[in-house]
Amino acid sequence: MTAAPFRHVAVIGLGLLGSSVARAARAGVPDIVITGYDADPAVRQRAHDIALADTITDSAAAAVAGADLVVLCVPVGAMGDAARAMAPSLAPGVIISDVGSSKAGVAAALAEALPGHRVIPAHPVAGTEQSGPDAGFAALFRNRWCILTPPSDVAPDDLARLVALWEAFGARVETMDAEHHDLVLAVTSHLPHLIAYTIVGTASDLERVTQSEVIKFSAGGFRDFTRIAASDPTMWRDVFLSNRDAVLAMLERFNRDLSALETAIRAGDGLALFDHFTRTRAIRRSIIAMGQDDARPDFGRSDHTGGD
Amino acid sequence: MTAAPFRHVAVIGLGLLGSSVARAARAGVPDIVITGYDADPAVRQRAHDIALADTITDSAAAAVAGADLVVLCVPVGAMGDAARAMAPSLAPGVIISDVGSSKAGVAAALAEALPGHRVIPAHPVAGTEQSGPDAGFAALFRNRWCILTPPSDVAPDDLARLVALWEAFGARVETMDAEHHDLVLAVTSHLPHLIAYTIVGTASDLERVTQSEVIKFSAGGFRDFTRIAASDPTMWRDVFLSNRDAVLAMLERFNRDLSALETAIRAGDGLALFDHFTRTRAIRRSIIAMGQDDARPDFGRSDHTGGD
Repeated sequence: MTAAPFRHVAVIGLGLLGSSVARAARAGVPDIVITGYDADPAVRQRAHDIALADTITDSAAAAVAGADLVVLCVPVGAMGDAARAMAPSLAPGVIISDVGSSKAGVAAALAEALPGHRVIPAHPVAGTEQSGPDAGFAALFRNRWCILTPPSDVAPDDLARLVALWEAFGARVETMDAEHHDLVLAVTSHLPHLIAYTIVGTASDLERVTQSEVIKFSAGGFRDFTRIAASDPTMWRDVFLSNRDAVLAMLERFNRDLSALETAIRAGDGLALFDHFTRTRAIRRSIIAMGQDDARPDFGRSDHTGGD
Repeated sequence: MTAAPFRHVAVIGLGLLGSSVARAARAGVPDIVITGYDADPAVRQRAHDIALADTITDSAAAAVAGADLVVLCVPVGAMGDAARAMAPSLAPGVIISDVGSSKAGVAAALAEALPGHRVIPAHPVAGTEQSGPDAGFAALFRNRWCILTPPSDVAPDDLARLVALWEAFGARVETMDAEHHDLVLAVTSHLPHLIAYTIVGTASDLERVTQSEVIKFSAGGFRDFTRIAASDPTMWRDVFLSNRDAVLAMLERFNRDLSALETAIRAGDGLALFDHFTRTRAIRRSIIAMGQDDARPDFGRSDHTGGD
């Protein structure tokens, strides 16, 4: 597709993801008009001050008027309400999408709130632990995957336009059904967040180890968990509530596997531990090979060159 | 202390940690003589080829002859044997230290293998998931903590010399007793590794989600776990076996806390989830403030500047 896939995008919700969508649209789509709205007046003011969009409006309905694409960037639990608020102003033929981390629940909420509209849910697998309109950046989606979960009756041209948009943002696009998305993300994202949230809580509640000691000696592994346990609380509350069944199913597997390693430790079974630890090392190498992480020690956290 | 704290260090074990100790000594201690030994002939050859030390010897006994400091950089389960192998060649007054990740078991093994010698166990809380003599670098310890667990009857001058050495490596030094060290590290390092090893194993064993999907969509959180689950299998087998009691005690706490979050998800208790996730965010901020991690989104993994 050589022409710009959309001429006017409305971004609803201007936090980390919404502000990144606005910036990526500005950087990657020639001549696109960008309107934006956030339910929080302070966020709207800040978005206005940093010129995040051509116009920051005082209502979702005003933001979407005339748009040929609306991207909902609100917590997944707020999608239905956000959709209902803007429904009366939607232009004919507009495509409605989102960036939520769970998809079956969002698809159902949007279908209910926007009957007859063209809804194509999306999930860019990218983010940081920061929040708010200043946290976004245009390159957030570059070299990351964006998963689209179109309904079975999607118009091929609508899908192609949304694919073109995400490719213009630098993302690689994959489509799958919403239920499979939710299962995949339960293991690659939701369960890791749940576990990180848990262990950071555990570490801050001990009697014999002080919080100051936990922080001081965090470089031994703990700090990697704290980053994802610093992610937005509202967003993640909604993710766990909306993808409950898949998360609980993955958690059951995890608990079973953790219990097996616990038994090996208790029994002094060094061979079982060694075999498990050797197997997991191979997965890391595949992630580096796929370009989904940085092989430098410490992800380049320090200044060293990796040599002497 | 203005004079160099040691004139000849013998490094036993030339993997990530041992080769980093050798490089840090070369970079930070003027005129120091460095001898090195590794049980693996291929590692010795490689260490020789890259001139990691002044002399790479064919036995631990030869490496320690004449040294006023020996640093054992072998897996914690191999400390006793390594100490016994070199015992006959130790010079009078030599200080024996190590870099093992658990300390009570190492202290006991060294005390048994080296009766009458001056043993001061140490643990630099630093590392990467890489292994081998090429993986080390002089700056590994810079701005990291090194915990010394001296026996109660340590000579103050011996302790001061070892503190001076680690400070010359760029580390910050703290002393505590071995049992407390093991409890602190169980939560800041050993439990995070155990959990990361578990979830990476879980993710690679699913029927309905392929390994390729897990790798592709790992940027959602999972990849942070794969880094620490790629750490050296022998080293970590030994850590879990030698610090078993503290690890199991922390695991019990973790399991209890995870079960509470599971209950909240099952019950749809959004308030409990939100409260927990808000609390853990504060810990992350303290770690950044203490200089123990990088606040850049993605730890600077990507090329972006964090802005637009």
